[in-house]
Amino acid sequence: MMIDVLTLFPDMYKNVLNESIIKRAIEEKHLEVNLINFRDFAEDKHDKVDDYPYGGGAGMVLKVGPVVRALKSIENYESAKKIILTPQGSPFKQSKAYSLSQELHLIILCGHYEGYDERIRSYFDEEISIGDFVLTGGELASMVMIDAITRLLPGVIKQSSHQNDSFSNHLLEHPHYTRPREFEGQKVPDVLLNGHHAKIETWRKEHQLKKTKDKRPKLYKKYLEVKRDD
Amino acid sequence: MMIDVLTLFPDMYKNVLNESIIKRAIEEKHLEVNLINFRDFAEDKHDKVDDYPYGGGAGMVLKVGPVVRALKSIENYESAKKIILTPQGSPFKQSKAYSLSQELHLIILCGHYEGYDERIRSYFDEEISIGDFVLTGGELASMVMIDAITRLLPGVIKQSSHQNDSFSNHLLEHPHYTRPREFEGQKVPDVLLNGHHAKIETWRKEHQLKKTKDKRPKLYKKYLEVKRDD
Repeated sequence: MMIDVLTLFPDMYKNVLNESIIKRAIEEKHLEVNLINFRDFAEDKHDKVDDYPYGGGAGMVLKVGPVVRALKSIENYESAKKIILTPQGSPFKQSKAYSLSQELHLIILCGHYEGYDERIRSYFDEEISIGDFVLTGGELASMVMIDAITRLLPGVIKQSSHQNDSFSNHLLEHPHYTRPREFEGQKVPDVLLNGHHAKIETWRKEHQLKKTKDKRPKLYKKYLEVKRDD
Repeated sequence: MMIDVLTLFPDMYKNVLNESIIKRAIEEKHLEVNLINFRDFAEDKHDKVDDYPYGGGAGMVLKVGPVVRALKSIENYESAKKIILTPQGSPFKQSKAYSLSQELHLIILCGHYEGYDERIRSYFDEEISIGDFVLTGGELASMVMIDAITRLLPGVIKQSSHQNDSFSNHLLEHPHYTRPREFEGQKVPDVLLNGHHAKIETWRKEHQLKKTKDKRPKLYKKYLEVKRDD
């Protein structure tokens, strides 16, 4: 997969792309990430990418020109899935990470300042938000998306690891324990120590359901609906 | 505000903390971020922080010892708000960013691998998730939280900037436009050019409501409920 990121802060990505699974995915050619600073596509002498809003108001607005010129500089940009990151977008979920992981080429625009010139939206296919909170810019949101998508690219991590992922079956994960058997008075449940596979599975499923019901009632309701439909 | 982050990948943060608003908040002493690698608190000779799960299964589990020893190494950790990042947590929203921005001291634990030893949870006050998707680790999630919280710390950005933030009044933002007046055939709406303040306000409010209703119907419903209660 190829991901082009349009950003004013390409340096922010350096250490994130150099760690952990994203780094390995890039080294093993499952993923290529290009950082494009659209400030390089500003036309005036001050490299201005923002300007005052028509009609007045606080904050600056991202200009349409630099973004669109940067977008059009990308080879085969027409056929790429073009995403704009904005609080107004549809919420990013694990199911969206799956569908985007099937694409060959993503272009992600990271906003800044008060907002985008409205005309920018017409050049993109989809608006995505990673949550109902306000960030300084789209950079961290794009890193979150890239991380979630990269984990799902074929060959990046073992398939068996995904099967237990939270949300992949609408349930939270069951509790995990590892050594030592006792820590500051807290013991590992006996059932996990006796090696009785069926009992362990039953215990885990019970706790998975209870945890989801207690902590994320809406998710639990969804699980019951999906289960009924099966 | 002081934020201690317990992480296995402190290097990931470097360029993020060195950009934009977070950098300025640190320079102006509104914020202090300490990165604590809990691998330094492993006790065996291989610095092991993870181990196989009791009861079997795919993936490794974060050991309780190194995390708890790292936590207890933090001065006044008892009085800090201690947060664990996990897909199981309650969803991070703008309202949560506001309430956390009132704290003096946050400690944030970033998970990795298949999950936490369940006993780790008993040492923390709150579990938070930034969304229903699976990330390689908690690092990016913690950066998202730090960014959203930092914007809200007193003195970091102008108060007037928050008033127009998405979600602060349960509505998305109205459309923004800046120069040029026309770009590839797309014009700025006339109403924004005529300088009639009341008409501009009406146009913006209308479009804010329409946009929220069209793109985020649940948010719009919430807005109507809050409005009715006022």
